[in-house]
Amino acid sequence: MSLVFGQVEPAVFQAYAFWAAVLALKMLVMSILTGLQRGSKKVFSNPEDVKPGGTVAYNDPDVERVRRAHRNDMENILPYFIVGFLYMFTSPSVFVATNLFRLVAAVRISHTVFHVLVPVHKFRGLSWAVGFFTTAFMAVRIVLHFL
Amino acid sequence: MSLVFGQVEPAVFQAYAFWAAVLALKMLVMSILTGLQRGSKKVFSNPEDVKPGGTVAYNDPDVERVRRAHRNDMENILPYFIVGFLYMFTSPSVFVATNLFRLVAAVRISHTVFHVLVPVHKFRGLSWAVGFFTTAFMAVRIVLHFL
Amino acid sequence: MSLVFGQVEPAVFQAYAFWAAVLALKMLVMSILTGLQRGSKKVFSNPEDVKPGGTVAYNDPDVERVRRAHRNDMENILPYFIVGFLYMFTSPSVFVATNLFRLVAAVRISHTVFHVLVPVHKFRGLSWAVGFFTTAFMAVRIVLHFL
Repeated sequence: MSLVFGQVEPAVFQAYAFWAAVLALKMLVMSILTGLQRGSKKVFSNPEDVKPGGTVAYNDPDVERVRRAHRNDMENILPYFIVGFLYMFTSPSVFVATNLFRLVAAVRISHTVFHVLVPVHKFRGLSWAVGFFTTAFMAVRIVLHFL
Repeated sequence: MSLVFGQVEPAVFQAYAFWAAVLALKMLVMSILTGLQRGSKKVFSNPEDVKPGGTVAYNDPDVERVRRAHRNDMENILPYFIVGFLYMFTSPSVFVATNLFRLVAAVRISHTVFHVLVPVHKFRGLSWAVGFFTTAFMAVRIVLHFL
Repeated sequence: MSLVFGQVEPAVFQAYAFWAAVLALKMLVMSILTGLQRGSKKVFSNPEDVKPGGTVAYNDPDVERVRRAHRNDMENILPYFIVGFLYMFTSPSVFVATNLFRLVAAVRISHTVFHVLVPVHKFRGLSWAVGFFTTAFMAVRIVLHFL
């Protein structure tokens, strides 16, 4: 048996897989950050989770900031996973493809840094925009390739 | 090296890749719509984002409507991406597979139209249901094929 | 045409596809559970959805509990889909890979059971942790393999 829908350069697949796994780990870290904030602020989302001295609340600014960053990852990184995967089948140059995969990983990490760790609106916005338009570029390439 | 887990018809992969990229672009547009609503209603989610005359709020009906539509996309389109991909390996007929991919893309676009642009409960519900049960159908086919 | 980026054992792909489809179906069920709760509590999220005797609200504890479980699925299962897929290309042993796929599916189902059906903090936390660290383990293997 062999898959018959196209060619992918091993170097391109290597870069995609490596940076996709890095981004998945980055997303998993968001759950840890949420848990740390919940523990330190003693703010929980289910009655059965509440620790002594804690409370159920959905408006703690620090907890909600991490959750917004996490949701932003879901809105942007999860579609990127399939877009980046399919983009490999559009015969991109190895140089362009590998660097776009690196770029998306870098700006999605910096997005979290500038949203949660050191909130800076300008840099967070720039990080988001670079990831957004890189993903859009890849998606448009897929649409044109498979038209 | 070759991937050895099954056969995919090029026409099926072409349809999957094309419509998956269209749906990814559709999802990206939700972020733009959210940003436009935030700008026009001057309602922001982080203190550092607030523009002159604006405020931080999480209950603006227009902003939240777009965000609900966006979350609905995440709940439905993101699982569909992997389900549609794996469905290709169940030896579906080219006619059925390509048309199911088109159908899911069409109803997920109409879902957003009837949720955000022209709110009509009945048509939005129908769009959601067609996408939902088509995805469920594909997932059941995968389960039966790889049992 | 053939895909040229690596070998995947048919038994590993079979296990991945089967359990990924099961998990996708499990996620789809969350939408049904949300709808059932909305109907029984008569609590809706859009003005145009409200049935006679119902209201728009975003703080019903039963509805919001299902929605939190659904979001937790999106945070954990959706990244797992790509991580599990790429993990297949790291030449894992058939025994380890197939059992990890089964494990993730089992604990993500038990997570929902202990969050929504029979809320038990301890068992829900354990289910979450096993799925989380299994996904992290696979992601680290991918990073090391494609370094």
